[in-house]
Amino acid sequence: MNFIEKWLRSDIKSINAYHVPPSNDMLKMDAMESPFGVPDELKDEFLEHISKAEINRYPDANADKLQKTLRDLMNIPDEQGVLLGNGSDELIQLLAMACGRDDLIMSFEPSFIMYEMVSKFANLSYYGVPLNHNFDIDLDGALLAIKEKNPKLMFIAYPNNPSGNSFSYEAIIEIIKTTNALVVLDEAYYAYSEKSFLDEINNFSNLVVLRTISKIGFAGLRLGLLIGSQNTIEQLNKLRLPYNINILTQASANFLLKDKLRISSNAKIIINERDRLYGELSSIKGLKVHPSQTNFILVETAKAVSLYEFIKNHGILVKAFLKGSQLENFIRISIGNENQNNTLLTVIKNYYG
Amino acid sequence: MNFIEKWLRSDIKSINAYHVPPSNDMLKMDAMESPFGVPDELKDEFLEHISKAEINRYPDANADKLQKTLRDLMNIPDEQGVLLGNGSDELIQLLAMACGRDDLIMSFEPSFIMYEMVSKFANLSYYGVPLNHNFDIDLDGALLAIKEKNPKLMFIAYPNNPSGNSFSYEAIIEIIKTTNALVVLDEAYYAYSEKSFLDEINNFSNLVVLRTISKIGFAGLRLGLLIGSQNTIEQLNKLRLPYNINILTQASANFLLKDKLRISSNAKIIINERDRLYGELSSIKGLKVHPSQTNFILVETAKAVSLYEFIKNHGILVKAFLKGSQLENFIRISIGNENQNNTLLTVIKNYYG
Repeated sequence: MNFIEKWLRSDIKSINAYHVPPSNDMLKMDAMESPFGVPDELKDEFLEHISKAEINRYPDANADKLQKTLRDLMNIPDEQGVLLGNGSDELIQLLAMACGRDDLIMSFEPSFIMYEMVSKFANLSYYGVPLNHNFDIDLDGALLAIKEKNPKLMFIAYPNNPSGNSFSYEAIIEIIKTTNALVVLDEAYYAYSEKSFLDEINNFSNLVVLRTISKIGFAGLRLGLLIGSQNTIEQLNKLRLPYNINILTQASANFLLKDKLRISSNAKIIINERDRLYGELSSIKGLKVHPSQTNFILVETAKAVSLYEFIKNHGILVKAFLKGSQLENFIRISIGNENQNNTLLTVIKNYYG
Repeated sequence: MNFIEKWLRSDIKSINAYHVPPSNDMLKMDAMESPFGVPDELKDEFLEHISKAEINRYPDANADKLQKTLRDLMNIPDEQGVLLGNGSDELIQLLAMACGRDDLIMSFEPSFIMYEMVSKFANLSYYGVPLNHNFDIDLDGALLAIKEKNPKLMFIAYPNNPSGNSFSYEAIIEIIKTTNALVVLDEAYYAYSEKSFLDEINNFSNLVVLRTISKIGFAGLRLGLLIGSQNTIEQLNKLRLPYNINILTQASANFLLKDKLRISSNAKIIINERDRLYGELSSIKGLKVHPSQTNFILVETAKAVSLYEFIKNHGILVKAFLKGSQLENFIRISIGNENQNNTLLTVIKNYYG
C-alpha cells in the first residue's frame, strides 16, 4: 500500500471518481445542456464586455453586480439573500460543511447524485428515502424517516432529476413544517417547471432555494445560487471561500443574463419541444415515457441498454444508468433544438422498426 | 435566536466572514496582484479564442488541455499528477475534507490565513507552530509539535505569506522526513522565489506542491493546482467536484499561459522592482524591511497604523494587520510596476519628511 492509500479515509478510497463519458463529436443529449449558445449577433458585444475584465486583479469578492443581475433575472425579492457558488455543486458542499459531525443528510431516491456524494466527502451520514412507483414522495414514509433519523439537512430536487417530475407541493410543505432540518429546494430546472418555492421562503425560516444557470444556456459558466432569508444567507456566507466566483464568470453572466427575453423564449421553445417529444415517444410501443417538468425526459424500456447503444452508434449521446441500479431499464434524454430532436426521433423510430 | 442561529454550528457562527476592503479607484498594492494585464496587442487573439467556447455546454470535466498547458508552463514532469481547483483555496479545502474527524491540521504562524479558516470550516483541529523572530521555522519547536500533535496534514507556505521569506530548505526536508502528515508545500509565489520543492516529490511520497496563477498576472481567473505523485493525485481527485473549472477559465488560461516568455519576463521585472524597493525602503529611518522571495515586501514600523492611513489618503491601498495581532506593527506592500512603485515611494518618503 502506498502512502496515500494508508493516509486517505477508507470511505473516500472506495469511491469511484465521478465519470464523465467522452462525447467526442457526438450530439450531446445526455447532460441537460441547453442547445442554444451565445447568439452570433451578440458575440461582438459579449467579447467587448469581457475584454474589460482586469484578469490580473482578483474578482469582486461579493460579486455585487452579478447578484443584482440574478435577482433581476429570477425575480428574487430584496428581502431575501443570495449566495453564489461555482455551480450548485459548490453550494451543496458548503451546506454539507455547515453540518456537525454526527448530523445526517436526507434526500430522496432516485435523485441528484451529488447530494449523496457530497455527504460522503463531508464524512456525514446520508439517507435516501425511496420515492414511490410514480417517482413521487411517499409522505408517510418520508415523515417516518424524518422522525427516526432527525436529518440536519434535506435536499429536495424540484422538479426531480433523473425522473423529471415535480413532487407533490403539499407533501413538501408538510415536510418543511415537520422537520427540524434546513430544507433545500433544488430548483435547477425552474425554467421548465410550473411552480417554485421561492415565495415560500417568507413563510418558512428553515427553507432555502437552490438554483443554477446551467440548464438555461450557461452550463459552461458554472454558476449556482442559494436563496434564503437575509439572516440565513449572512450566516452561511461565512463558509464561502473568498473570491469564489471568477472575474470572467462575473463579466459574462452580467452581460448574458440581461437578455431576459431570449432566455425565456428559449425556455418556451424547449418546453414545446419537450411536450412534442413526449407525445411522439409515447406513441412508440415498448416505451413508457414519464411526464416531465424539466428539459429532459425519462423513458422506460426493457431494452434500455440495447436502445442506448443503438442511439450512440448513430452519433447521439443520451444517459443510461448503471446495470443493477433501480433505473437500469431507463434512458434519460435531454431536449435539444427541433432538428436535434427530430434526428433522435428518427433513430428511435428506426430502432423500433 | 432565529432558525439559522439555532441550526448552525457555534464555531461557524462566531467566525467573521472574510473581509475584502473596498478599493474604489485606489491603486491596489494590497493583494499580491500582478500589475500586468492582458497586453493590448494580444487582446484580439485572446477574444477570438474565448469566442469559441461553447458556453451552453459543460466544461471539459478533466480540463485535459489546461493540464498540459500548466505542465508546460511550470515544467511539471509527466510522472507527476495534477489536480486543478478554483484558486488554491478550493484545493486547500479539498485537502482538509480528505481528513478524518479527529485529525489535526498544522501550519506555521503567521502564515496564509486560509489554512486555519478552512480547518475551521471542515470542523477540524488546527495548530499553528510559532515562527522564530526572523519568521523562519524553529526546527526544534516544529519537531516537538509534530511529535505531540501528530498532524494529519501540514501546510508550509514556501515562500511564506505574509512575511515574504523562504523558510530553511533543510528544516522543511527534516519535517517531511519526520512527520506522518501529508505535507503541502504552498508555492504560490514560486515565480519570485529561487527554490522549489517540485523535484522533491519523487523523493518523498508524503509531499505535494500547491501552485496558483494568481500572482503571475491571472488572479481574476481563480486557478490553482496541486502537484503530486500520480497515485496521490488519483486518490485526491475523488474529492474534486466534477466540472469545477469553468469553460472560460479553461479557454483563457489555455491561451494566456502559453505566453511563457512574457510571463517570465514580467516576473523578472517584479523581482527587480522588489529588490529596488527593498533598497529604497531600507534606507528610510524608522522602517525595518524584511527580505522577500515574493512579489510583496513586509515592512516593520512602530507607526504602522498612521503610515497605512497616510498611504491610503494618497490613494494607495496596502495591507495593514489587525490591532493586537502579532503583525500590528507591520504593513505589507505588493510590488507594482515601476511608476506605481515610484508613486508609493514618494508617498512614504513624504511621510517620513
